[in-house]
Amino acid sequence: MSERSIEFWLDFGSNYSYMAAMRVEALAERFGVKVQWRPFMLGPIFESIGWQAVPFVQQELKGAYVWKDMARQCEKYGVPWSKKPSVFPRPAVYTMRVAAAYSSEPWLGEYCRRVMTRNFVDDRDIHANEVAVEVLNRMGLSGVDIVQSAQVEPRKSRLRLFGEQAKALGIFGAPTFFVRGEMFWGNDRLEDALAFATSDRKYR
Amino acid sequence: MSERSIEFWLDFGSNYSYMAAMRVEALAERFGVKVQWRPFMLGPIFESIGWQAVPFVQQELKGAYVWKDMARQCEKYGVPWSKKPSVFPRPAVYTMRVAAAYSSEPWLGEYCRRVMTRNFVDDRDIHANEVAVEVLNRMGLSGVDIVQSAQVEPRKSRLRLFGEQAKALGIFGAPTFFVRGEMFWGNDRLEDALAFATSDRKYR
Repeated sequence: MSERSIEFWLDFGSNYSYMAAMRVEALAERFGVKVQWRPFMLGPIFESIGWQAVPFVQQELKGAYVWKDMARQCEKYGVPWSKKPSVFPRPAVYTMRVAAAYSSEPWLGEYCRRVMTRNFVDDRDIHANEVAVEVLNRMGLSGVDIVQSAQVEPRKSRLRLFGEQAKALGIFGAPTFFVRGEMFWGNDRLEDALAFATSDRKYR
Repeated sequence: MSERSIEFWLDFGSNYSYMAAMRVEALAERFGVKVQWRPFMLGPIFESIGWQAVPFVQQELKGAYVWKDMARQCEKYGVPWSKKPSVFPRPAVYTMRVAAAYSSEPWLGEYCRRVMTRNFVDDRDIHANEVAVEVLNRMGLSGVDIVQSAQVEPRKSRLRLFGEQAKALGIFGAPTFFVRGEMFWGNDRLEDALAFATSDRKYR
């Protein structure tokens, strides 16, 4: 039997991506499912849909609610949380480029969690190669080497390629999960996606 | 101790309102919580936010996904489902006016479930007083009397009043739940809202 897996499409600036990133590996392990990380830039997707800004920012009422929901859901799931970051959504091209370049590395999950925690818990900038270097060094890796080689082709283009794949897949938000070609949108559907990964059925 | 209760804000044309309407009373009973039905028109809310159409209709990608999600979630929750209604969103002013006029009646939940099932399972029109009469008659009630008296003030204006309250409360979608003044948005938050109703804590 082939290995059961789940694609996890995330943007470092997305708050519900953060919640899912903090949960996905431990939960997937319980289900016996492998996580395939798919960092991609959500901004160009929103632009292509015709949104001028993140929905939570553009829609005032929904925006106010979202941060309440984040506090509640993080508490429910035991995910660290403080408050809405002072910059939202935070750009993260450099740190995400590293994530995309090394998306299959065993340390990728920890790297993503550390960078996203820096944004959503510590309220600090994540839009610089120096941040990637610092995070990787703290993980006991060679930050400078990894970040430098992430800027060499074909690795450098992987973030853009994931973005093009996301668009081709019809992704319209983050986090999004794919299991055997089936889309599951949002942190609220993570458990459903994992249950589907361990089943043998097909959805209509 | 005062009675624990949950306000359930719904629009008959909203598909996730349908899912919540089919679940709320049985679930609330398990939690020992009373349901206060709050039928309101979502259209004017969307207009005041600046949306020209239902988000699922306006955003093509999300629209395609939503009906997959509906099929999956209804199966998960054991709620009857067939497919996207041929008219969406279906107008329902007349049947909702009756619901709003008699929102505290013990038969209200069953009335809502029957009307919404007619829309989302049977794919039939729900925008007529005759529909309300038929549904009420099948429930063993005096349909004509109830529908006629729903058109007498102050009962007639209750649907409009609920709409004004919804706007004042900052409601931006349906279903929405309120417990002790705290908003919970979406069918996915029903369990959280009920858990909060049975707790003594306050959210930030």
